[in-house]
Amino acid sequence: MMGRDLLGIEDLDREHIERILETAKHMQEVGRRDVKKVPTLRGRTIINLFFEPSTRTRTSFEIAGKRLSADVVNFSASSSSLTKAETILDTAKTLDAMDADAVVVRHKVAGVPKRIADALAAPVINAGDGAHEHPTQALLDLLTVWEEKGRVDGLSVTIVGDVLHSRVARSNIYGFQKLGAEVRVAAPPTMIPAGVESLGVKVFTSLREALDGADVVMVLRIQHERLQGAYVPSIREYAATFGVDRAKLRFAKDDAIVMHPGPINRGVELSHDLADRRPGVVLDQVRNGVALRMAVLYLYAGRRDPRPGGDA
Amino acid sequence: MMGRDLLGIEDLDREHIERILETAKHMQEVGRRDVKKVPTLRGRTIINLFFEPSTRTRTSFEIAGKRLSADVVNFSASSSSLTKAETILDTAKTLDAMDADAVVVRHKVAGVPKRIADALAAPVINAGDGAHEHPTQALLDLLTVWEEKGRVDGLSVTIVGDVLHSRVARSNIYGFQKLGAEVRVAAPPTMIPAGVESLGVKVFTSLREALDGADVVMVLRIQHERLQGAYVPSIREYAATFGVDRAKLRFAKDDAIVMHPGPINRGVELSHDLADRRPGVVLDQVRNGVALRMAVLYLYAGRRDPRPGGDA
Amino acid sequence: MMGRDLLGIEDLDREHIERILETAKHMQEVGRRDVKKVPTLRGRTIINLFFEPSTRTRTSFEIAGKRLSADVVNFSASSSSLTKAETILDTAKTLDAMDADAVVVRHKVAGVPKRIADALAAPVINAGDGAHEHPTQALLDLLTVWEEKGRVDGLSVTIVGDVLHSRVARSNIYGFQKLGAEVRVAAPPTMIPAGVESLGVKVFTSLREALDGADVVMVLRIQHERLQGAYVPSIREYAATFGVDRAKLRFAKDDAIVMHPGPINRGVELSHDLADRRPGVVLDQVRNGVALRMAVLYLYAGRRDPRPGGDA
Repeated sequence: MMGRDLLGIEDLDREHIERILETAKHMQEVGRRDVKKVPTLRGRTIINLFFEPSTRTRTSFEIAGKRLSADVVNFSASSSSLTKAETILDTAKTLDAMDADAVVVRHKVAGVPKRIADALAAPVINAGDGAHEHPTQALLDLLTVWEEKGRVDGLSVTIVGDVLHSRVARSNIYGFQKLGAEVRVAAPPTMIPAGVESLGVKVFTSLREALDGADVVMVLRIQHERLQGAYVPSIREYAATFGVDRAKLRFAKDDAIVMHPGPINRGVELSHDLADRRPGVVLDQVRNGVALRMAVLYLYAGRRDPRPGGDA
Repeated sequence: MMGRDLLGIEDLDREHIERILETAKHMQEVGRRDVKKVPTLRGRTIINLFFEPSTRTRTSFEIAGKRLSADVVNFSASSSSLTKAETILDTAKTLDAMDADAVVVRHKVAGVPKRIADALAAPVINAGDGAHEHPTQALLDLLTVWEEKGRVDGLSVTIVGDVLHSRVARSNIYGFQKLGAEVRVAAPPTMIPAGVESLGVKVFTSLREALDGADVVMVLRIQHERLQGAYVPSIREYAATFGVDRAKLRFAKDDAIVMHPGPINRGVELSHDLADRRPGVVLDQVRNGVALRMAVLYLYAGRRDPRPGGDA
Repeated sequence: MMGRDLLGIEDLDREHIERILETAKHMQEVGRRDVKKVPTLRGRTIINLFFEPSTRTRTSFEIAGKRLSADVVNFSASSSSLTKAETILDTAKTLDAMDADAVVVRHKVAGVPKRIADALAAPVINAGDGAHEHPTQALLDLLTVWEEKGRVDGLSVTIVGDVLHSRVARSNIYGFQKLGAEVRVAAPPTMIPAGVESLGVKVFTSLREALDGADVVMVLRIQHERLQGAYVPSIREYAATFGVDRAKLRFAKDDAIVMHPGPINRGVELSHDLADRRPGVVLDQVRNGVALRMAVLYLYAGRRDPRPGGDA
């Protein structure tokens, strides 16, 4: 049985992940039609509660909800009375009391979606919380690899970049391992979380060794504010040692795929030619994101129940 | 016959208020369904024209409109060309010319919804104007009390807090009196409007006396900027004398209900334990807000007629 | 055959313009119904990608899309991760990868919609780019004149104001000439683009001469920042010489109509009495804007094809 909320990949077992991916495969077909709409969630209310700006994720959830015929309401912190010191939890409870069928939450602080979930009757979907998890991103990455490679089991996946600050990395480490892949991480020592080996990954500070024989190269976005000297000597230095380009990619398998959650810093973590390679995997990830989020909303929305500690 | 616009409770008679509340009772049932949608306003265009930030009210109107199958368009001042010095009235007329079926207006200046209504063909719903009125908030408060107590007639209602600056208080004073309740207000003298007795309310500067025998205790939100010394000596002083907590609530009737329009300043106008009391009335107010606004949109939207002085 | 994108009136021939206008005539009827909705674009996804604030145009496209039953997603730059240095093109490609059926683009830099169109599978509608073109504004102006005058062929159209910085002027110069009207422009010499005569218009620096015998007087909005001395001596000076009022209008034909794309600077480029004249053409332009954009979305949305250089 699936839990009520989707807070992290850490909480899911293999069977649940596979069920979500299989549902997403069916949803992909909807996006290929002229009439990209099914009546599945007609009359359901989905609330996008974003406390951080977001291009891809918010729009992806909005389109996913609308293609399922749900009513989607966007609530972003900047345009709200949160400027009046309303607490986050009061806001979430208020939206819940409007009989929301799902609340999609993004917040810069790890753990906020969990705290909100504990207080609501509506299911909560984590759309990214601090450096904790970004489960729908990992699920769409799994879907993309599954499609490209025909399987996840037994693959070798190398995650390159700022693992320390990356919720995408954390969720993918859990997800790929649960589906039977081997996961390596490669980064400067300052960007590797202490004790990450306990998650079962192999840690490399040489990109070349980390890429050796990889089926999947997952490049993380690097935040510019992290390139000002505290973590790496300079952007140029980072690009030279951990930026993925065609030359370094030769150490991976011939048919290795390169993934990136977007948006790309071209010429930093990923070279210009790989960023623009066609057909590219990056935009497939985006397309799969809509199908994956349709699957998640389909599976999670509308399971309102009273829960201990909740108001409703 | 109801007027075309809903600008304030002052303009409504008892029969109209009761008709809105009865319609809202029917709408509540829609929110309890899995498919929370009726085709009533299909193909109608409702515009949320908010010149002030708002969490609850804007979202509540948006959800209400969508559950009636209307097309809802949000227009908030910050993201608009009002930064280009376009006048408010020109904006409203422009939206009206797009054949809007209702325009929901919030503005920090009292009287703006009325001025807009005079210029438009579409009906205007006041969603709060300065310290003037917030009619849908009062209607949802009436609905909540009606549900909790089975009647409004003959009840004793105590409004506590900054009545001077509160559009919620003004609308509720009109609404509860029109439905036959006795209304008292309790506040520091600096927060009581001159001549408020002429509205028929009893004024108290002792919270204890004001609460004596009350059926309903309506606590107003206090704005932090009003607690800086001009109106009250300090937050602590305000909380001690006019903050409602369990001890003070003992002066009211045993089955008295505590209401608050939200968001609550916990520990200031309302104690933490009362704010979190379960089952609480505060979130019922929010839930009733959607049903009430569905009723208002149903009754008011789509009554476009040429009117003297209008462009359309 | 129409092109895939609507980037400018310069690219359209007479037959295409007339086809759009005739389609818009049919769409006008939808706006007059109680149920202002047709199922034409059900299940299509339309994205409003606005990098500049806009009242009328964004709302007009949103309402147009919803009346055609499309799913409309608003994406405005300020609330997005463009603050994270994501490039414009990456953003557009991302939205395209979500299987958008049309992307409506506004940007302050001329040529951006064209660059985006070259990279996307979805058709791109230009909603205004810098001082280049604003094709749907010109088309709705043509529709308004066609309705008011019964024809465009043979009319004399005078465009008054800051032609140099006006995308509305450029698009209308192309549009009215292609439908057989004679176009004159009148402005201070500093506001007339070099070589504008090569577009076939007659240039006047005397408003009186420019208005002589005009059927249509199209007044451009003047940006306040252009009135600070660099282009004209003062606002008062501009209003006196190029502001259109009843006295100057006497030089035009008796039945001349006065148009303005809105919002109006009353008392500057257009006098108060003409701005408020009833029945006024300005609000007819707004109403026609929705019908015109319905026609454009109907004719352009959903024509996704792989194109050379695109990712999808």
